Amino acid sequence: MPTGLDGIFKPRSIAVIGASTKKGTIGREILHNLIDSEFNGKVFPVNPKAHVIHSIKCYSTILDVPDAVDLAIIIVPRDHVAPALEQCGEKGVKGVVVISAGFKETGKEGAQKEKELLKIVRKYDLRMIGPNCFGVLNTDPDHSMNATFSKTKPLIGPIGFMSQSGALGEAILGYAKELNLGFSMFASVGNKADISGNELLEYWRDDPRTDIILIYLEDFGDPREFTRIARGITRSKPIVAVKAGRTDAGARAVSSHTGALAELDVGADALFDQCGVLRVTSIDELFDIAKALSTQPLPRGNRVAVITNAGGPGILATDALVNLGIDMATFEEKTLKNLRDNLPSAAAINNPVDVIASGGPDAYRMAVDTVLSDKNVDGVIVIFVPPIVVSHREVIDAIIEVIGKHKNTKTVLGCFMTEPSGVAGSEEFIKHKIPIYNYPESAAKAMSLLVRYRNWIDRPVGEVVSFDVDRERVKDIIDTVIKTGRRTILGEDALGILAAYGIRIAQSINAKTRQEIKNVDSQLGFPVIMKIDDPNITHKTDVGGVSADLRTKTEVLEAFRAMKKRFGGPGRDFAGVTIQELIKGGRETIIGMSQDPSFGPLMMFGLGGIYVEVMKDVAFKIHPVTDYDAEEMIKSIKSYPLLIGFRGAPAVDLKVLEETILRLSQLVNDFPQLESFDVNPFIVTPKAETSKAVDARFVLKKNDKGES
Amino acid sequence: MPTGLDGIFKPRSIAVIGASTKKGTIGREILHNLIDSEFNGKVFPVNPKAHVIHSIKCYSTILDVPDAVDLAIIIVPRDHVAPALEQCGEKGVKGVVVISAGFKETGKEGAQKEKELLKIVRKYDLRMIGPNCFGVLNTDPDHSMNATFSKTKPLIGPIGFMSQSGALGEAILGYAKELNLGFSMFASVGNKADISGNELLEYWRDDPRTDIILIYLEDFGDPREFTRIARGITRSKPIVAVKAGRTDAGARAVSSHTGALAELDVGADALFDQCGVLRVTSIDELFDIAKALSTQPLPRGNRVAVITNAGGPGILATDALVNLGIDMATFEEKTLKNLRDNLPSAAAINNPVDVIASGGPDAYRMAVDTVLSDKNVDGVIVIFVPPIVVSHREVIDAIIEVIGKHKNTKTVLGCFMTEPSGVAGSEEFIKHKIPIYNYPESAAKAMSLLVRYRNWIDRPVGEVVSFDVDRERVKDIIDTVIKTGRRTILGEDALGILAAYGIRIAQSINAKTRQEIKNVDSQLGFPVIMKIDDPNITHKTDVGGVSADLRTKTEVLEAFRAMKKRFGGPGRDFAGVTIQELIKGGRETIIGMSQDPSFGPLMMFGLGGIYVEVMKDVAFKIHPVTDYDAEEMIKSIKSYPLLIGFRGAPAVDLKVLEETILRLSQLVNDFPQLESFDVNPFIVTPKAETSKAVDARFVLKKNDKGES
Repeated sequence: MPTGLDGIFKPRSIAVIGASTKKGTIGREILHNLIDSEFNGKVFPVNPKAHVIHSIKCYSTILDVPDAVDLAIIIVPRDHVAPALEQCGEKGVKGVVVISAGFKETGKEGAQKEKELLKIVRKYDLRMIGPNCFGVLNTDPDHSMNATFSKTKPLIGPIGFMSQSGALGEAILGYAKELNLGFSMFASVGNKADISGNELLEYWRDDPRTDIILIYLEDFGDPREFTRIARGITRSKPIVAVKAGRTDAGARAVSSHTGALAELDVGADALFDQCGVLRVTSIDELFDIAKALSTQPLPRGNRVAVITNAGGPGILATDALVNLGIDMATFEEKTLKNLRDNLPSAAAINNPVDVIASGGPDAYRMAVDTVLSDKNVDGVIVIFVPPIVVSHREVIDAIIEVIGKHKNTKTVLGCFMTEPSGVAGSEEFIKHKIPIYNYPESAAKAMSLLVRYRNWIDRPVGEVVSFDVDRERVKDIIDTVIKTGRRTILGEDALGILAAYGIRIAQSINAKTRQEIKNVDSQLGFPVIMKIDDPNITHKTDVGGVSADLRTKTEVLEAFRAMKKRFGGPGRDFAGVTIQELIKGGRETIIGMSQDPSFGPLMMFGLGGIYVEVMKDVAFKIHPVTDYDAEEMIKSIKSYPLLIGFRGAPAVDLKVLEETILRLSQLVNDFPQLESFDVNPFIVTPKAETSKAVDARFVLKKNDKGES
Repeated sequence: MPTGLDGIFKPRSIAVIGASTKKGTIGREILHNLIDSEFNGKVFPVNPKAHVIHSIKCYSTILDVPDAVDLAIIIVPRDHVAPALEQCGEKGVKGVVVISAGFKETGKEGAQKEKELLKIVRKYDLRMIGPNCFGVLNTDPDHSMNATFSKTKPLIGPIGFMSQSGALGEAILGYAKELNLGFSMFASVGNKADISGNELLEYWRDDPRTDIILIYLEDFGDPREFTRIARGITRSKPIVAVKAGRTDAGARAVSSHTGALAELDVGADALFDQCGVLRVTSIDELFDIAKALSTQPLPRGNRVAVITNAGGPGILATDALVNLGIDMATFEEKTLKNLRDNLPSAAAINNPVDVIASGGPDAYRMAVDTVLSDKNVDGVIVIFVPPIVVSHREVIDAIIEVIGKHKNTKTVLGCFMTEPSGVAGSEEFIKHKIPIYNYPESAAKAMSLLVRYRNWIDRPVGEVVSFDVDRERVKDIIDTVIKTGRRTILGEDALGILAAYGIRIAQSINAKTRQEIKNVDSQLGFPVIMKIDDPNITHKTDVGGVSADLRTKTEVLEAFRAMKKRFGGPGRDFAGVTIQELIKGGRETIIGMSQDPSFGPLMMFGLGGIYVEVMKDVAFKIHPVTDYDAEEMIKSIKSYPLLIGFRGAPAVDLKVLEETILRLSQLVNDFPQLESFDVNPFIVTPKAETSKAVDARFVLKKNDKGES
């Protein structure tokens, strides 16, 4: 539970420092909004140049205010903010909201100024929102505070909205009002110098008036903290996010397969997925889902029905639903009978139900009632395209009546296809808490997000598993490598790290001379594979550096001779070879990790070779990975069918794969100095005992001293 | 050029049969709209029960009208339509629009009634729109005809709109009006009993007032005709389509790989792609792109810049553009210098350009001017989030002024983020033909469609290539198969068909006895592969029916013995084996065809085995395939890198692959009795001579007599 936020959102008195007499200025509009919202406490304008503003006595400084002040809104020019803040501290205010801009967002000098503000905040134990923000509001009638400079009067409702963009503040409040969406609280967090988005999430988690949290994010601040907090909220309150900003492909060193594949915005997607946050791609969609979440129960499953009076929109809705992975409900026999008995023969009684253009109030009432009563139906989209011959109003009333009868048992979304400004009677829907959409596709998208949220709630929590490992051995290997001035760990050392973490590795020997391989038969048995030992060669096969499937000692010696000839010879230092047991009857997989500049370690899983490199068929999760996450990673790749038995090949041991991912996640946790790694391949076979890592490559962070 | 449509869209006199005195009825509203639109000709209400309607003398039947009548609008109850139509014929009218419903859309009886209408239409050489439609309109001031029952008065503009859904008519006209989009003509085509959508496309192709064609489709009617006509239009006038309705996976026999993969709505996508029609997924998007097409020049390339005054929306636009495959323009040095010199240091001068919240009219004027002057920029999205401290109006004026300066050279789309009902001044944008969007994502989507359309215009036309083939031989093979009562052509016969069409095939011999393979060395050479010859075994490898890479005659004989033991033996008839030359050093590909119930033959290409079956990595085109289409098919699969040399493997001969697709397309053309086929695998190697088909399977249509 974050402390001090009540001072911001539940003040008993507010000083507006920089209040202005001039209409249209921020200093005037905030004061006006506070008064207009009938703030349930005292408001003190502060401005040395005025005696009265907006009919209220004005003070020169906050120190002149005779009463205690809980919250100060600061709107003065940048260079006056610090002195004003200092005075707030002296006055003993609890919270400040700094609207003034010109800080970190403007460059170095501004960032310095912002640090000064933070110093004052810490010195007086103040809490601060901003700087560079649009303000905050709390619609709770006990407080009734609108400390924004919005032209829109927000409605009361269950939504907590956090925006990282002040510029979008007005647009957000405006859109919401038009859509009849109400807020519990709203905060434009600006530069987040003191109070972070994460703290607000925690605050709203515990706020009984906030049922839904909407966020517009540009960066996560602390993504791991975000994950932890969001996971703790999303099972009871939905969080819907618009996240702007893709990972800049050019901005990062790509040191591994995993890194190269993570170029896209997979980090944010993985993070949202793993903490149950519904990510939408636009503000439009944000409000579409908010409308549904704030009025309708969640569907119990993913079987949806569509009822329409016009074929086209019904098909559009069906297309969209199916494309979004929703099942079209298969009706019970009695539903079909009822629809057949009560609709004209030209009507369509299978899902989507088409009551056809002549369908009036009775047809809608019957169809909606029948379909909502069907136990195979979890949610319904009711489409109505007003034809001239049918009374809009009666149909609307009929639909509302019958939905009311089924209220709070099943999800119902409406789609009214008329001009965007709405049809007469649409306000009736809003009054009866039935969200309506202009387009079938929007209703379908909202329905699919409700289903996704239901799936998240039903998903097992999963746990981060801990194994008994030899951490010291890994520390030794890393320290030794660092001592030699290298950052890359390859071959035997790399496999040694895996072995220390309980991952089976293919047995191997290294040899520079014929002498060293004379006991290959007793040491490894057959078949074996021989690879050139040169850290500079990444793709060994391409240059003839691999000799596979050697079945006898003679074949091994012959391959060695050829390898020595190819890579050694006069004037060249022969690096030697690795001879390794050949694992047959398995699938090559890659398990990797790369440090994402925003999200920290990103774990990757995919099938080896072409699947990863050409088909980009990989799954990502943010570290730490739970057992359920690992299972999801494995199951979510397109080539998953190859793992569970394909064309007569037996299924591999998925458990050993899952465990290997979890052991590597533990390694990532224990050694934050790892920049990236690829275990490539980890060959998984039908049995755990024969599933082994064959090669791996670890890269250490730059300038890291290697302490773990 | 379709004939008789002028009678519908350019009449000099109109009779409204079923005109009504009662407000709110269709019969009254259409008459009212004709008068209200000041139709440039005579209007005659026809209704036996009235003497005057809407101040105009009314006639009992059309035959009583003293003057000639060009067009009749029929709104009478269903069973009165045929007699009225008969009278229209007698009267000598040219066109009729039948609004009345109750025909094909209501089932069998209605379909019969519709056939009767068509009979009368043919008898009198009338042309008919409908039945079951919303009407037609033509905004040409020479005609000025609104023969719909819409409540919306449409604007004049360059859009021809065809809707297959009458129910959506009102919504379409309403939305368009709100977005300030004007029509040249509009037609709700209803059941398309006489005049088809395809005829309308041809009509508008030749209409000088129509620059953009928008269509809302539920089915194609004749998809091949649609393709032919659309291809002839889209290089000069854009066609944008919303197509409702996916191919029902359950409704078709899946007789091949190709069929199984074509379950999704790939047919419609392929068709639109091949004829340059821009497919959008919602009516929302349809209007978004129409706004841009009707006001802006097409971008010359795909390099787009974004200018914003708020970081978030700029990033949202960038994300959306990049996800849609658009390149973010890299600015020239002088552009960067100009932006650096004229914007505050906190501004972002790289694309996306952020003039920051303080950016007023001067900043916008300079930034838009500079970026539009950059030769690396093909299009610009200008985002403006009105902050309280900047005057909206001055910024709007500045943007309009500077865009005017660059007019008709580069594409500019605006994004104004305020409440949906618009900001003061947005009408100025509309007046100056700058399309504005509420959300950055919508602007990005519209821009991407403009780029896609530009790419279509620049794309080579391609041609359907004809090869010298042995058609008779294929006819013989098919006839022989049909005589045996089979529908499936396998093995030698299947390969024979390919050979007849000039496709190289792997040499093979069939053998049931050891005797028959004694000359294998001289007949085929080595290595060879042996496969069991059983039409009932689809996946031969799975059951041990394949013995690969046999290198000597001894190995061949040994494999034959084993095969005979496995599949022959006491009481079982040994089907024999095929021994075939083994093609090494190539990639397995699949080329297939399946008949789509709507689109006809759908050609498929993909890499063999797992790529097609597990990864679903395939490309589809509607037959006939041009040389450019074939090239696109090959290049569009994800696994394409494997064909052009991967990890040291040499590139295969893409030309032979392309030619093979084209030869198979010719086969499809010559033999419409083919239901489906898979050439699987066609092994493509670095050289054309060694690239060969190894196996194939053809299926004939049911009940086909085999005539070609």
